[in-house]
Amino acid sequence: MVGSGDDGTHGSPFAPPPWIQPHSSTLPATGAWRPGDPLGQRQFMKMAVDRPFVLEGGGQLRDITVAFETWGRLNADASNAVLVCHALTGDSHASGPAGDGHPTPGWWDDVVGPGRPIDTERWYVVCANVLGGCQGTSGPASSRPDRPECYGPDFPVVTMRDIVRTQARLADALGIWRWHAVVGGSMGGMQALEWGVMYPERVARLAAIATCTAASAQQIAWWSTGRRAIALDPKWRNGHYYDAEPGDGPHAGLALARMVSQVTFRSDDVFTDRFGRSPVDPLAGRFEMWQRFEVEGYLDYHGGKLARRFDANSYLLLTKAMDLHDLSRGRGSMHAALARISAPVLSMGITSDILYPEYQQRELADSVTAAGGVAHFHEIDSPNGHDAFLIDHQQVAAALVPFLESTHHE
Amino acid sequence: MVGSGDDGTHGSPFAPPPWIQPHSSTLPATGAWRPGDPLGQRQFMKMAVDRPFVLEGGGQLRDITVAFETWGRLNADASNAVLVCHALTGDSHASGPAGDGHPTPGWWDDVVGPGRPIDTERWYVVCANVLGGCQGTSGPASSRPDRPECYGPDFPVVTMRDIVRTQARLADALGIWRWHAVVGGSMGGMQALEWGVMYPERVARLAAIATCTAASAQQIAWWSTGRRAIALDPKWRNGHYYDAEPGDGPHAGLALARMVSQVTFRSDDVFTDRFGRSPVDPLAGRFEMWQRFEVEGYLDYHGGKLARRFDANSYLLLTKAMDLHDLSRGRGSMHAALARISAPVLSMGITSDILYPEYQQRELADSVTAAGGVAHFHEIDSPNGHDAFLIDHQQVAAALVPFLESTHHE
Repeated sequence: MVGSGDDGTHGSPFAPPPWIQPHSSTLPATGAWRPGDPLGQRQFMKMAVDRPFVLEGGGQLRDITVAFETWGRLNADASNAVLVCHALTGDSHASGPAGDGHPTPGWWDDVVGPGRPIDTERWYVVCANVLGGCQGTSGPASSRPDRPECYGPDFPVVTMRDIVRTQARLADALGIWRWHAVVGGSMGGMQALEWGVMYPERVARLAAIATCTAASAQQIAWWSTGRRAIALDPKWRNGHYYDAEPGDGPHAGLALARMVSQVTFRSDDVFTDRFGRSPVDPLAGRFEMWQRFEVEGYLDYHGGKLARRFDANSYLLLTKAMDLHDLSRGRGSMHAALARISAPVLSMGITSDILYPEYQQRELADSVTAAGGVAHFHEIDSPNGHDAFLIDHQQVAAALVPFLESTHHE
Repeated sequence: MVGSGDDGTHGSPFAPPPWIQPHSSTLPATGAWRPGDPLGQRQFMKMAVDRPFVLEGGGQLRDITVAFETWGRLNADASNAVLVCHALTGDSHASGPAGDGHPTPGWWDDVVGPGRPIDTERWYVVCANVLGGCQGTSGPASSRPDRPECYGPDFPVVTMRDIVRTQARLADALGIWRWHAVVGGSMGGMQALEWGVMYPERVARLAAIATCTAASAQQIAWWSTGRRAIALDPKWRNGHYYDAEPGDGPHAGLALARMVSQVTFRSDDVFTDRFGRSPVDPLAGRFEMWQRFEVEGYLDYHGGKLARRFDANSYLLLTKAMDLHDLSRGRGSMHAALARISAPVLSMGITSDILYPEYQQRELADSVTAAGGVAHFHEIDSPNGHDAFLIDHQQVAAALVPFLESTHHE
């Protein structure tokens, strides 16, 4: 029986057992990759330091490092480069196995690789950790210029446009003037769309999956609850937790933020099929407050897993960046913003997505067309919810492969 | 500008401003009604103390008080009694104005009252605060028998069946053998269904709105995140917060639990129409972490409001009771459970409900019919999400009034 004090650490039937708050006495205060950690497949670009990088939200950064990975070979005229943009908790490791420096296999390993839909024998694929992230690119867990301490909560608010500008600098450094394609799902799709609007001449094709032209009120509501979960954790310490002892970081708050989002990432159907009402622990004739159903064990697992590999302040920053995502901001109107896109747009939506509902991707395609562009909508028919873009790779491939091969508009 | 230390209390751009955690230095540690507080319209029934009340989950309670309200007059043959069952954060005050002892107007004031759909000039209406609640019926904030301290976290886990058994005792005490109707939405609908299964001969009609025959994995997932939010709040103190100073109760955790559920109570459409991307505070050229969009202000408002009138331990107990809701438990099968219902069933579902999706109420009607009963499904076509059962009272009335008037099967 669970939660009834069997382990002697909690005497009341209400007191949550330790797994409720996935602390581990050995868990570092942040799951960020930090200098000195194994590099894995990471490469690094240091952006020029001649003048500060001024962010859209008004903040400034004096030095920026971008961590990225590449696969395949850039051809002589640099015409085969594909930029893959990652989602909220992704990183540069889009493809490849887990290993030193990469706690998990590539987040799109079924899609990116030799002989796979984004075939690295043909395309030169680049994936960069986003600005404000925690896997090698400058973010709250990074040291300040010329000082040992982290930015922590002083890292300025970033937007998709700031992220895309760092990616454009990376493209410059790699000698890529024009991407054959920019591809991304969820937050990655927001970046792909900003690429199309900010640098129309540098994008030959744009594939945006399960994303939106501007965050809706419901999306803001979801992400804001995650931020409040982190702020509620006393171990978050207003963002100053990097010197905390192992096990004393804001893991519980970050895990709770992830649990909420994990529900929005999947669907009612898939939860019913996978978990139903099965208990983790048999009810055994007595009901206890913290007995778990299987779905709760699943959420705890995903919450704890993210706490091991992510940084709470980056979670705050990047969810805020998604809430601030609005292609129309400062551009007159959404129509005017979308009219800047010259690349053909492949917009993909997922039938069961409750976080970025399919109608948003249909609207994206319709709005690009209405603004004079070329757009095609492709439906991913899946019960897997928002995460289908990471799971149903064959359906992603069915639209993505011919789109990458297409020669129109080049 | 918000969140930038303008008030001198937080120096970092990340540090959440005070409204993020809706503490108030004058807010009692629990929002529960407690003896000595104004009675309002409450009446009380003390259940017999000759032997302990053994709960389905194995716990026992020695004394139970049930707080309830009534409207109208019971007729001579006690044939005009209607039981209204409240939802998670409701209470006995289904009808009537706010006032001493009732911080808010009746939660179904548009539906219950003289000349209203459940017409108290015709029906004798009863509404009781649920067991484990916090508005007069025994719950965690209640004193233990013969002792001054509260149950707190030692209050045992309760189920819908326990709640319904206390309501049956109340019916006995009021001289009501058979309800003309038992009516409820959401958690109230779970009680109505259990009434039909547990006491078929005592229910002449059963109306269940926006509810389910058994909690789904997704519903368990949602409620479990709320419980974890409360457990994350250090001021929850493993449930021992009743002696905390004003302002020092688990308000932030309870508020966050409410914020998450508030998103599930409404819909994407209604959030877009009502809030869109409007900011509470103009962005004013500089983006800050805790600047809020209007929808965030709305969630903060609802979170803080609940913290003022509810008890965190009751929130834990009642969400757990909803997760444990399963008409089939111990009854062989869902079919066998539903076959016990002899009352005609009116099942209502809401087109935009994302928490208790409409298919569940269609299935309820179909399953009752398949089990040999009489059931009718009525659709509430509304953008208001789950809360439509509290908002779209005319659509509720359109089905409920003729159902109450019907004479079939009596």
